[in-house]
Amino acid sequence: MKRSERLVAMTNYLLEHPQKLISLPYFAETLNAAKSSISEDLDIVNDMFQREGIGKLVTIAGAAGGVKYIPQLSKEKAERFIESLCKRLEDPGRLLPGGYLYMSDLLGDPETVRNIGKIFASAFAEKDIEYVITVATKGIPIAYATANVLNVPVIIVRRDPKVTEGSTVSINYVSGSSRKIQTMVLSKRSLPEGSNVCIIDDFMKAGGTINGMKSLLAEFQANVNGIGVLAEAEDEEEERIVTDYISLIQIQDVDLNENKIEVVKGNYFKG
Amino acid sequence: MKRSERLVAMTNYLLEHPQKLISLPYFAETLNAAKSSISEDLDIVNDMFQREGIGKLVTIAGAAGGVKYIPQLSKEKAERFIESLCKRLEDPGRLLPGGYLYMSDLLGDPETVRNIGKIFASAFAEKDIEYVITVATKGIPIAYATANVLNVPVIIVRRDPKVTEGSTVSINYVSGSSRKIQTMVLSKRSLPEGSNVCIIDDFMKAGGTINGMKSLLAEFQANVNGIGVLAEAEDEEEERIVTDYISLIQIQDVDLNENKIEVVKGNYFKG
Repeated sequence: MKRSERLVAMTNYLLEHPQKLISLPYFAETLNAAKSSISEDLDIVNDMFQREGIGKLVTIAGAAGGVKYIPQLSKEKAERFIESLCKRLEDPGRLLPGGYLYMSDLLGDPETVRNIGKIFASAFAEKDIEYVITVATKGIPIAYATANVLNVPVIIVRRDPKVTEGSTVSINYVSGSSRKIQTMVLSKRSLPEGSNVCIIDDFMKAGGTINGMKSLLAEFQANVNGIGVLAEAEDEEEERIVTDYISLIQIQDVDLNENKIEVVKGNYFKG
Repeated sequence: MKRSERLVAMTNYLLEHPQKLISLPYFAETLNAAKSSISEDLDIVNDMFQREGIGKLVTIAGAAGGVKYIPQLSKEKAERFIESLCKRLEDPGRLLPGGYLYMSDLLGDPETVRNIGKIFASAFAEKDIEYVITVATKGIPIAYATANVLNVPVIIVRRDPKVTEGSTVSINYVSGSSRKIQTMVLSKRSLPEGSNVCIIDDFMKAGGTINGMKSLLAEFQANVNGIGVLAEAEDEEEERIVTDYISLIQIQDVDLNENKIEVVKGNYFKG
């Protein structure tokens, strides 16, 4: 196989298998080339991945070694994407009764969701994440998008037990904003004890849901190594009960009378 | 930029933008190369995509022309993947009380979910799909995986209206297997009238849920151009009320006494 052909095959394979160690002999055999040629190919791929701002290849030497693609959306690309997302959210047509914002179209757009996942995955790339946890239902797409890039499974916490989940662990918690008692359940067999996890959700107000998830995960002795929310509400009347999180956007002000929404970049882009 | 470098950049760009027409001048400008070189590059990429069984490039001539990547998982690759999925599902450890099967681990695995999405997207590639529709919550991951490949938005039908969805259209329907009256709602602004859609869900027994979705979509004058379910139950006592669907796997027999599960390939691979 020619170098040009190998490069197309390798680029595709690496993009499809993020975070996975691939041995050089694997490429040498499937692409029918010398290991030295494969090494040169990988240098080219690595250069281009970095130039395109989509990540890098990490080479691990030795008999058990190989190459691993670490996806990483550059901070500039991430920032540009989030700025455009803020603009789209400021459209007054999104205002719903009660001061809520319509966001389902954005969370339904695959490219938007993929980009959000890439940003979270880049933020948590060094955190040794083994599982991405979210709560049904709005956080599910961005949790999968994140897990796709981290190449780890997704686990979904539910509001009600389902017969298809087997035995479950459940907790009651107090919702931060409405002060209502709510329930969360997680299938017992879904998460091995002592796992390293990150929590992903679409929206955080006071943080009651995230806090509830932390309590539930404590039942599994899980280590919460990262918390990422797409949007956080800026709400000064309430005290936030979760503080160790990253947010991509912040909904600063929703004014139903003036028909105005103000959305800014979240804490991930600050400081 | 050298050909080898261009090929890495173009492969990445095309994989990231499936089903989207990209003009040759776009590549010529961003990669700083002559249009004739770009054409030759695209031939190499096209050959390799087909050889790898991941799809093809389609070139559209003329001033408004360009190139489009049509992802397509070859039927052999799809069949091999589904066969291994059937094996994983036949593990007796999946048996739950009531004869249900635990599948959340498989639906939580990003690579499995991506492959399922690729198969559905290949099946519906020629159906002119504008939206992928699913119902909360188990179908959401595979709906997104399908939409990612078709490069169209996902719309989620819910069991209860949510305040963040704005005004909704709701219908009542009779669940096929339990004969209970259930409700489904869809945000009014989520789906333009007269759209071409496909329905994706994780599981179908008698088909009541899918049928309910069809009724709900009729309120939006949508054309249901495809229905895909991951698993269907083989149940001879009941009559299926939906017939125009594809299934990837079929759960043939669940025997709690013998601790045995029989899972075979779905109708997509038959005939």
